Amino acid sequence: MISAEPISFSQAFELINPHLYTVEERIRAQAKSFDPAVEGYVSYVCGAGGKRLRPALALLSAGATGKITASHVDLAVILELIHIATLVHDDIMDGAELRRDQPSANAKWGNAITVLLGDCLFAHALRLSTNFSNSDICRRIADAAAEVCSGEIIQTQRRFDLKLSTSDYYRIIEMKTAALFSAACELGAFISEASPPVISALKTFGTKVGVAYQIYDDILDLAGNEEETGKTLGTDLRKGKFTLPVLLMLQSGRDVSTIRELLLKEDKVDGELLVAMLGSAGALQSAKAVAHRLIQEALTQLEDIQDNKYARGLRAIPAHLGTLLEKL
Amino acid sequence: MISAEPISFSQAFELINPHLYTVEERIRAQAKSFDPAVEGYVSYVCGAGGKRLRPALALLSAGATGKITASHVDLAVILELIHIATLVHDDIMDGAELRRDQPSANAKWGNAITVLLGDCLFAHALRLSTNFSNSDICRRIADAAAEVCSGEIIQTQRRFDLKLSTSDYYRIIEMKTAALFSAACELGAFISEASPPVISALKTFGTKVGVAYQIYDDILDLAGNEEETGKTLGTDLRKGKFTLPVLLMLQSGRDVSTIRELLLKEDKVDGELLVAMLGSAGALQSAKAVAHRLIQEALTQLEDIQDNKYARGLRAIPAHLGTLLEKL
Repeated sequence: MISAEPISFSQAFELINPHLYTVEERIRAQAKSFDPAVEGYVSYVCGAGGKRLRPALALLSAGATGKITASHVDLAVILELIHIATLVHDDIMDGAELRRDQPSANAKWGNAITVLLGDCLFAHALRLSTNFSNSDICRRIADAAAEVCSGEIIQTQRRFDLKLSTSDYYRIIEMKTAALFSAACELGAFISEASPPVISALKTFGTKVGVAYQIYDDILDLAGNEEETGKTLGTDLRKGKFTLPVLLMLQSGRDVSTIRELLLKEDKVDGELLVAMLGSAGALQSAKAVAHRLIQEALTQLEDIQDNKYARGLRAIPAHLGTLLEKL
Repeated sequence: MISAEPISFSQAFELINPHLYTVEERIRAQAKSFDPAVEGYVSYVCGAGGKRLRPALALLSAGATGKITASHVDLAVILELIHIATLVHDDIMDGAELRRDQPSANAKWGNAITVLLGDCLFAHALRLSTNFSNSDICRRIADAAAEVCSGEIIQTQRRFDLKLSTSDYYRIIEMKTAALFSAACELGAFISEASPPVISALKTFGTKVGVAYQIYDDILDLAGNEEETGKTLGTDLRKGKFTLPVLLMLQSGRDVSTIRELLLKEDKVDGELLVAMLGSAGALQSAKAVAHRLIQEALTQLEDIQDNKYARGLRAIPAHLGTLLEKL
């Protein structure tokens, strides 16, 4: 049942604002569960803000299938903590100095403390998940966490690998990004005791939104506005992360030998030249088209879900992603 | 009830040998639960062997309080996987090239993959722990894991800190080492449905054995036989890990300014000179005495436990540690 009146992305967030506020408070309060010597580190990385997309998906899925409960808030907190833990470790691997305009944990305290800090957050999130009375929820969360890490390993392993196929790429981003999106939507509905087909539809919805989101983020690295995003373009290329536009270009057979040569220059990759080539070959457009298709497929998953304001809020997430893609 | 006939360390391991064999097989089999691209890494670190002290404590505690069941084997596997995950991350932080005479994971695949590999193992262990029907077990395991990481953070944070007190030191090693020993003994008894006082006695036993074991290991780094241990002496000192003998020496007030100066030389620490000073000041002996006292206290915890061969096996662990200490 598609509603006649779609709502905007910001309206979707407004719908769940009181719950998101609680999530935010709870995330910030987690630091207190640690040893006083560790509290400051946890507090810093948990207080750094973020888009809170995973909590939003969990809460909207909850509302779309029932009442938003304290368990849904727990779920949102746990998934965001796992996400924060992976960001903390990502910044080590990428040697990133900044995270949301603030010094990254590794820049502040070095890699040793930061590896352990990520571990602490991870263990803590999984500890919180043992409070669910149904251990299936805890298991599903641990599964998603393991999948995120496995996806990141494969991505790291395949850096600078010109044999990476688009299906390898989809598999990697489905694991490293979509696993938590998918768990947020699936478990939001599961905790609401939705019917199995609804739970399954929301799970697929989450996966597709997650994959589309990562494709968008990857295109942003190649074709975004440096001033707006505050990120240096072509960072992925220099780190050997070959993302969808690059893989589509290689697949197309156009300028393959030039592209291959450019890609393997590591830190000296001429990002501007590559981006120009990707643009003129239509590879950026093709990648956007894939993301748009996934967004449509995600929306299709919601067609059989009983309409309410939260279901409309859920639809607003991929719809907004579509708008962002258009702007690139 | 103390038995008249103590058994040896190797006899203790023989008692539980069939179960340990299953644990070993299960640990090696875990790699198959990962994505094929990740399997090889997991297989390498899980197949590297180890003393399997935590599994042994879990199984002996199980037998001392009831029948050794499949759940106890699960517990043993999970605790060892968490231990392996922490070793994988430890080797990154220490820049260790070797682990049990084989190249460490970081030496083989670099830090990025190795951070993620530790995360994967960690998430996987916690995923396995969600299979216990009683979620208290899962929670206790996640608690212990979080404690290990917090202990490691504090240790890293306090490197080269001359203000570190002996009580800070005890707190750190109770967290980073004894937490898993304690969980092994406590949960071994808990799964056997032992009475609360017995569970509590075994928990305390595990903690005391864990702390004594870490003190032994720390003395070994200062006064071991390089050929026997295959380790370079004084590694902790050079990394700014001030362990019990050093802290006791500083506390004694003897040669404090010389010691302080020597300790802060980082990579250039004259390990031999320091060890000689610790020896002649009696600090090594004092540290051994602390470990011996803890071993006695651990044994006292078992006095009220119904005697059987496994209870005797459990006593053999700290008793053996006492013998090793004597040999130093």
